[in-house]
Amino acid sequence: MERGTEDARFERVHDPARVMALSDGIFAVVITLLVLEVHVPELGPGQRLVDALHEIRPSVVAFLISFVVIAISWTAHRDLFVHLRLTDRNVVWLNLLYMLPLSLLPFGAALISRHERDPAAISIYGTLLVMLATTRLVIWLYATSRPHLLYEPIDPRSRKRGVLLVAVPLAFYLVAIAIASSMPLVSIWIFAAAPILYFVTMVLSRAQAPPGAAEHDFT
Amino acid sequence: MERGTEDARFERVHDPARVMALSDGIFAVVITLLVLEVHVPELGPGQRLVDALHEIRPSVVAFLISFVVIAISWTAHRDLFVHLRLTDRNVVWLNLLYMLPLSLLPFGAALISRHERDPAAISIYGTLLVMLATTRLVIWLYATSRPHLLYEPIDPRSRKRGVLLVAVPLAFYLVAIAIASSMPLVSIWIFAAAPILYFVTMVLSRAQAPPGAAEHDFT
Amino acid sequence: MERGTEDARFERVHDPARVMALSDGIFAVVITLLVLEVHVPELGPGQRLVDALHEIRPSVVAFLISFVVIAISWTAHRDLFVHLRLTDRNVVWLNLLYMLPLSLLPFGAALISRHERDPAAISIYGTLLVMLATTRLVIWLYATSRPHLLYEPIDPRSRKRGVLLVAVPLAFYLVAIAIASSMPLVSIWIFAAAPILYFVTMVLSRAQAPPGAAEHDFT
Amino acid sequence: MERGTEDARFERVHDPARVMALSDGIFAVVITLLVLEVHVPELGPGQRLVDALHEIRPSVVAFLISFVVIAISWTAHRDLFVHLRLTDRNVVWLNLLYMLPLSLLPFGAALISRHERDPAAISIYGTLLVMLATTRLVIWLYATSRPHLLYEPIDPRSRKRGVLLVAVPLAFYLVAIAIASSMPLVSIWIFAAAPILYFVTMVLSRAQAPPGAAEHDFT
Repeated sequence: MERGTEDARFERVHDPARVMALSDGIFAVVITLLVLEVHVPELGPGQRLVDALHEIRPSVVAFLISFVVIAISWTAHRDLFVHLRLTDRNVVWLNLLYMLPLSLLPFGAALISRHERDPAAISIYGTLLVMLATTRLVIWLYATSRPHLLYEPIDPRSRKRGVLLVAVPLAFYLVAIAIASSMPLVSIWIFAAAPILYFVTMVLSRAQAPPGAAEHDFT
Repeated sequence: MERGTEDARFERVHDPARVMALSDGIFAVVITLLVLEVHVPELGPGQRLVDALHEIRPSVVAFLISFVVIAISWTAHRDLFVHLRLTDRNVVWLNLLYMLPLSLLPFGAALISRHERDPAAISIYGTLLVMLATTRLVIWLYATSRPHLLYEPIDPRSRKRGVLLVAVPLAFYLVAIAIASSMPLVSIWIFAAAPILYFVTMVLSRAQAPPGAAEHDFT
Repeated sequence: MERGTEDARFERVHDPARVMALSDGIFAVVITLLVLEVHVPELGPGQRLVDALHEIRPSVVAFLISFVVIAISWTAHRDLFVHLRLTDRNVVWLNLLYMLPLSLLPFGAALISRHERDPAAISIYGTLLVMLATTRLVIWLYATSRPHLLYEPIDPRSRKRGVLLVAVPLAFYLVAIAIASSMPLVSIWIFAAAPILYFVTMVLSRAQAPPGAAEHDFT
Repeated sequence: MERGTEDARFERVHDPARVMALSDGIFAVVITLLVLEVHVPELGPGQRLVDALHEIRPSVVAFLISFVVIAISWTAHRDLFVHLRLTDRNVVWLNLLYMLPLSLLPFGAALISRHERDPAAISIYGTLLVMLATTRLVIWLYATSRPHLLYEPIDPRSRKRGVLLVAVPLAFYLVAIAIASSMPLVSIWIFAAAPILYFVTMVLSRAQAPPGAAEHDFT
């Protein structure tokens, strides 16, 4: 009845199952809560719904950008955790830190919905994206340098590629924040375009990777 | 400690478990968020609650139609994934694409609750249903034509039946959108009746299927 | 690579895992959404928060009653599904039907929060509880009479006990609805007291059950 | 097909899987719902967003404090359940009792957001934290004294350490409630600082624990 060995206990305590379960739950709720910020317009006197709907365009844009950001954050989370055989205390807490900007994203989306050209709104939304990318980077760097947590070691080249994939959009988010006061709409365009850059970097990484490299497994 | 073979790694990377976990989470949140659009009526002076409740009839109708749509979307998702032994990159992204109209459905339900005879509201709700059916169709066609992803191959006849099951309600949704300006209430009736059509097609498909065909496993 | 036998396919198609995953998700969201109906009071001029908090007493009562109802619905769901080795189409759809009144419960709670003595509000809340109990009863009767779905057969006495456990509160809910117009506050008391009755019936059932009977496993 | 032995049935009925699934779901929803209380400010005439954002500082503070509280509650829940091989009826119900203050936390956070210096608001928030800590303590004491529920027995010293880890912040929460009327802002600071205390106690516990003690596995 009792397995009792040190090994079995070690595996149990460091099992990533619940970390993934909580994370999937948070991803699912965040991606769905976004819709609460897309409000049905109230009609003014004589106004037609089809006209009033144009007013919610900013919130639809904020919804779509945020939906893609969360989708990428989830696939990147999954791409990391397929390599993780075990977690440790730091992975658990870093993962919770990753959940912080994620769970604030609906607020950020609401902010750029209602104040779409305001530099403060854009900077806050951009900061959330920067925090999301940075914590993802830290977890990637931490976990991939600890072979005892992994099913199999990740070679240094693949590791750097993983960094590049996060760093490229991160750099663009920083640019978007820097120009938020002077060119707010360009910032929004950068937020919208960053995922395209991510996919391009991804495709190039795969094309250049030798057979068997971890890049082929990136979603 | 290390399984390390290419095969084990391949299975791990292509395991559908987290795709299903995220999807079940999103289905659960969306089906429950719908209720937030059914508002407790505020009473006017001298008004009785029992009278005021008649005013929320449209939102109850929108709730019920959307509940059934999500329930069918979930059973269809489950019916596909029982055949999927492995996912690939495209299945993961197509599945996220399927989640997009799904997570917008509470907005669509709110729209037809408050503007129940407005052609714009009905067209948007109908478009969400069309997007949901179309992405489901694409995943079905993609996955069932790749035997290496499946536990066992699905024969062409069953595959076509799976298409028909989605295509029949899809056609009716397109009709509902087309007549939204002239006969908005008929469109709502079509949204409500489409699931019945789905079940009739389902029962007929099963009755006509030879023993051992995949149709017998459809929920 | 391919297991391919009819048996393996049958097990896969009828695996209850995703039915439980979706249900647990819905239970988790519903129990947490309830809190959105407990509003922070707005203070009138000169009003102190401690006084204003008395105004939200009805919504706290509605929260607590609903929390207990959902907790019992979940334990009862778990108590049934520990016996279920397989699901079939009917179990899947009956389970979705069980989710319908469950996902409407936050609306019911909002209704009795804001109109706490209104017969219409109490009747609707009571009707949701009756629907919840009835669908639970139907799933129990359906599943326990199909030994091919169960790990081991459930004897007729335990089966009847399972019915009694749901039927006793159900009867009280019907009384609460019947007297809603004349004694609304008594109805609320019945909603609050029904779980106590449930626990008493439970304890008595266990005390009277022979060794090895299913009642000992009820939560 | 039927495993049928008493042992297999016992394991199945007492399997903690669904208790963890429901709990992870509730943790995920609660941590994400918090953001709904961080409102995008409405601008007064001539007001700039960057100034208006200062007004939501209290709700951001309440969000962050509550986020950390929930994160710790989850890691503590995980730290207990890695030891639990089986649940019993009492663990199930105690766990649901633990979910009660947890699911009320978004209300508590809203309360201290909008009435940040009000003693009543602070006392209620503090009471939720006290309830959360107390129920956690009770589950820990209950489960760790029942070796038949555990993978391996927990030695008395580790058990006391587990109590201390909860009792230290608990004592501070009681102080925060006691001084809420005279020094409300100090109470908020105590809520914010309690997690730091928790981590200090944690680090000290690990440093003092002999090799192989359960403290080394605390997250």
